[in-house]
Amino acid sequence: MLRRTRRTEAGEFLAEGAQAVREAIGYQTENPGTVLDLFVTEAAATRNTGLIRLAFAAGIEVTQVTDRAAAAMSDTQAPQGIVARCRTIEVDLATALAGSPKLVAVLVQTNDPGNAGTIIRLADAVGADAVVVAGDAVDPFNPKVVRASTGSLFHLPIARSDDPATLLEKLAAAGLSTLATTGGAELDLDTARSDGLLELPTAWLFGSEAHGLPAEIIAAADAAVRVPIHGRAESLNMATAAAVCLYASAGAQRG
Amino acid sequence: MLRRTRRTEAGEFLAEGAQAVREAIGYQTENPGTVLDLFVTEAAATRNTGLIRLAFAAGIEVTQVTDRAAAAMSDTQAPQGIVARCRTIEVDLATALAGSPKLVAVLVQTNDPGNAGTIIRLADAVGADAVVVAGDAVDPFNPKVVRASTGSLFHLPIARSDDPATLLEKLAAAGLSTLATTGGAELDLDTARSDGLLELPTAWLFGSEAHGLPAEIIAAADAAVRVPIHGRAESLNMATAAAVCLYASAGAQRG
Repeated sequence: MLRRTRRTEAGEFLAEGAQAVREAIGYQTENPGTVLDLFVTEAAATRNTGLIRLAFAAGIEVTQVTDRAAAAMSDTQAPQGIVARCRTIEVDLATALAGSPKLVAVLVQTNDPGNAGTIIRLADAVGADAVVVAGDAVDPFNPKVVRASTGSLFHLPIARSDDPATLLEKLAAAGLSTLATTGGAELDLDTARSDGLLELPTAWLFGSEAHGLPAEIIAAADAAVRVPIHGRAESLNMATAAAVCLYASAGAQRG
Repeated sequence: MLRRTRRTEAGEFLAEGAQAVREAIGYQTENPGTVLDLFVTEAAATRNTGLIRLAFAAGIEVTQVTDRAAAAMSDTQAPQGIVARCRTIEVDLATALAGSPKLVAVLVQTNDPGNAGTIIRLADAVGADAVVVAGDAVDPFNPKVVRASTGSLFHLPIARSDDPATLLEKLAAAGLSTLATTGGAELDLDTARSDGLLELPTAWLFGSEAHGLPAEIIAAADAAVRVPIHGRAESLNMATAAAVCLYASAGAQRG
């Protein structure tokens, strides 16, 4: 079994649990070679006979492992006993932005895996065209991100960009208006919507929980937008702010 | 130091960290007797001199404790070394629903403390009038909920209701339309908004992450509403769904 750092270097990741494994096998049918192995404990095999049949039908090698081996592959305290070893499904940025995207979520230096996974799930839910992970952010194929995305990372292209500054040019070149979320913005989301700004093809930029977006990214974006706070809360967490922004865009674009 | 179960029975809770302590002291100025003690480690006292001055000015007894004692009070792996012991600030349901509320968040059997705290923070952010915690839900003064609420539980009334069925009658009697969030609803949020449903005074009902709302609550509510899924995600997590619903109501009511 490869250890985590070696796995990342090898371009592999683990999808754990019945839901993620089902999504991985579904992805495999259109992208052969994605699932390299499926590991199951005896107990998990008994609980997931349909899934194991699907894996066999897709030509995936299924290996029974001990509870201890399954626990060693898992980073949760309650391993589900079913883990797919997958080839990375990251695409390059040009591929992710091909075909006139209308809605893209960009995670800039987002370091919390729960937030990253939740935003990938949200991007999928609103029908976004891609997710881009930029700068020194969490690995989108980190097991915690995979888990929080509940399989959504198999549903839309995920690309990485090492340089957030040139990324903004590439987003603009793809026809996307870039909106930076920050609590300090003058423009609020309701005004952005009533001004028609959200009907444009849009890349939403989200930052880290602790530090938000870097100032140079906010300055370089087409507009900075805040989710309005009507009460006395100081802020929203990143995933809930992203939910409100992405659904506002989906609503405006679908009219 | 009281242990957790004894604290709950004694009608007390702990607010940990500089932000929660600041909110607790702020609450104390209008509600004397809320903060019973403030415990700080030497290191935390050095980092939070302004806060300690505020506590003294508010007549709160400040006790220096060892790092080990602070860690014993904390349920986090990185204790912040500053903890306020507070008298419970729960109000009764009639008080929470007094004064023609326009927007209320109801957590029905919500058992995940992160979700509960995040929804309290959201309810505060949208300017909701109250949060009601119903049925066999997490204790809203559980340390994990307090932490996830980032101080918002001091900003709006939190009430409990042991019986979700009679709760619906009480919400209706307070003039609130009751909307049950469930992925299986026919009515989607965009249609509810365009039909004018969200402009009414509303109590949003949210369930548990794993099981959603009980069927009898969905049946008894004025309407069941789903957040639309445009892509291939199976569902949203409870806190992000709540973000979208509560902001949709705030927008419609303020629009």
